[in-house]
Amino acid sequence: MTSRRYAIIGTGAVGGYYGACLQRGGAEVHFLLHSDYDHVSQHGLVVESVAGDFALPQVQAHRSTATMPPVDVVVVALKTTHNGLLPELLPSILGPKTAILTLQNGFGIEDELAAWTSATGTDRAIFGGLCIICANKVGLGTIRHIDYGNVLLGQYRRDRQPAGISPQLEAIGQDFRAGQVAVELVNDLRLARWRKLMWNIPFNGLSVVMNATTTEMMADPDIRQLAEQLMVEVLEAAQRDGELLSPGQGRHLPQAIVAHMLTHTEQMAPYRTSMKIDFDEGRPLEVEAIYGNPMRAAQAAGAAVPKIEMLYHQLKAIDRCQSKSLS
Amino acid sequence: MTSRRYAIIGTGAVGGYYGACLQRGGAEVHFLLHSDYDHVSQHGLVVESVAGDFALPQVQAHRSTATMPPVDVVVVALKTTHNGLLPELLPSILGPKTAILTLQNGFGIEDELAAWTSATGTDRAIFGGLCIICANKVGLGTIRHIDYGNVLLGQYRRDRQPAGISPQLEAIGQDFRAGQVAVELVNDLRLARWRKLMWNIPFNGLSVVMNATTTEMMADPDIRQLAEQLMVEVLEAAQRDGELLSPGQGRHLPQAIVAHMLTHTEQMAPYRTSMKIDFDEGRPLEVEAIYGNPMRAAQAAGAAVPKIEMLYHQLKAIDRCQSKSLS
Repeated sequence: MTSRRYAIIGTGAVGGYYGACLQRGGAEVHFLLHSDYDHVSQHGLVVESVAGDFALPQVQAHRSTATMPPVDVVVVALKTTHNGLLPELLPSILGPKTAILTLQNGFGIEDELAAWTSATGTDRAIFGGLCIICANKVGLGTIRHIDYGNVLLGQYRRDRQPAGISPQLEAIGQDFRAGQVAVELVNDLRLARWRKLMWNIPFNGLSVVMNATTTEMMADPDIRQLAEQLMVEVLEAAQRDGELLSPGQGRHLPQAIVAHMLTHTEQMAPYRTSMKIDFDEGRPLEVEAIYGNPMRAAQAAGAAVPKIEMLYHQLKAIDRCQSKSLS
Repeated sequence: MTSRRYAIIGTGAVGGYYGACLQRGGAEVHFLLHSDYDHVSQHGLVVESVAGDFALPQVQAHRSTATMPPVDVVVVALKTTHNGLLPELLPSILGPKTAILTLQNGFGIEDELAAWTSATGTDRAIFGGLCIICANKVGLGTIRHIDYGNVLLGQYRRDRQPAGISPQLEAIGQDFRAGQVAVELVNDLRLARWRKLMWNIPFNGLSVVMNATTTEMMADPDIRQLAEQLMVEVLEAAQRDGELLSPGQGRHLPQAIVAHMLTHTEQMAPYRTSMKIDFDEGRPLEVEAIYGNPMRAAQAAGAAVPKIEMLYHQLKAIDRCQSKSLS
């Protein structure tokens, strides 16, 4: 079996790391680069990894998708705040059967991709990957992989039902595994996204508003209690959403996750969340993907999520204030 | 009619300003001072006021309540965070009929005073004053009065029913008026406190969490929306509380206050709230008086106040963090 040809749209920490893994596993990978283009086209990529460093002295680097061939899988690894660029970036590399895999954080990303690709007249497969990874880009063409690294892959269905595991999903999973990435294939991508939000919603937002690491948040009884209350709101939102879309199917997350995630977070090494890093670096915050979209889905399903709503408004204001002071 | 003898417990901006007004009106006033004692006992008090500067070259300054005579009215003007000192400060000046008037911010203050004075075996009158004032202490014995200055005075009843206007309340009001303070006497102190919280709860807390003046908060659509949602929570809490304590009496605030307060706040000159000033000066925040007590009263009355609860937890964490970094 030959592996597929991939395009990595956004060679930051996530795109760079998983793209490098795919290439290491034997796939043909095309990287879209911006400020790192000159360096990477000459020197390739370096991954400093807890799981063992590796380098790819030669990669197919592109400054524009216009120079890429059509690919089998487009991997979207931009920050969601840049998704407005996709209708311009993707068409030239989308063959009629090209799949799209988004590795982005948040909720509703696949819906947006589906709406856009339907508008372009095709009905291609869309996949979502939930990356459980601590990684940063630390220099030109250099990614530091600090912890974790596994990926949950699932297929999106336009009717928002569980899509099961298709041969195409299996094949993509195989390419990641060949690159030494631990992969779990999931039946129900939407429920997996709710599950990931149970952690991201409390800790990403509170880390910015309260200016704290995970360890500091867990050590403060009031922030810890807020984190738990936010988790419970996400859990209830997921339950209402599952009941709305798949009545009577028991499509929800187990209550025990709340205690499990709190204990796990308490035991983690002090961790600066991705949103806190974006904030500290003066980058736009992924507020709509991580807060706005799930909040609206929860409300549409009849779940009251007042604390998520409050965090959403606080983060919108912080993001607006930051973008003003930088402009 | 002779005016009453007053003790001012806490000669900061509020205690200093209103104590000076009472003395100007002819009352005998004893001031409790701490760091300003030496200066004030020699030079008196100075009030730089929008309504006209005035000075009191001679005041009765005390370093301790032990040197004060028994008084008719004890005016409590400490920050609520120092109320733990009252059982030590007050007994020596409390005659059997001495009234207590608290000019402090927040909710439930009179309940705490009543619980404590009941424990001391008396059943004296307790009054609350809501000070609508922008004032700061700007130097030794010097208070700058920036705007407003009026006071709402009401009597506390241990059964939490409206107390009406007693002759004693009228008399105290008269002493303030003699000192050129605009006074409104209120029938229902508890409802007046809820009304004041409708402004204090959104703007004090959000000014600290979001690091903003009133003008900045009103200019940001997300903070403005949060402020409105918090106001609505206070309004509903007041309604539930009124219904619990006085069923069928229509003891609640009019809905129209929300729009009125928002418009008014929008038109105010940029204002740093008292909690923001406390925060900027590294002082403890009055979180329990302004948030904890009304939150618990709301919950006891069956009102869901999730956003007030969230702001409470955020402020508790900020207050704890600040007190750690200062200690």
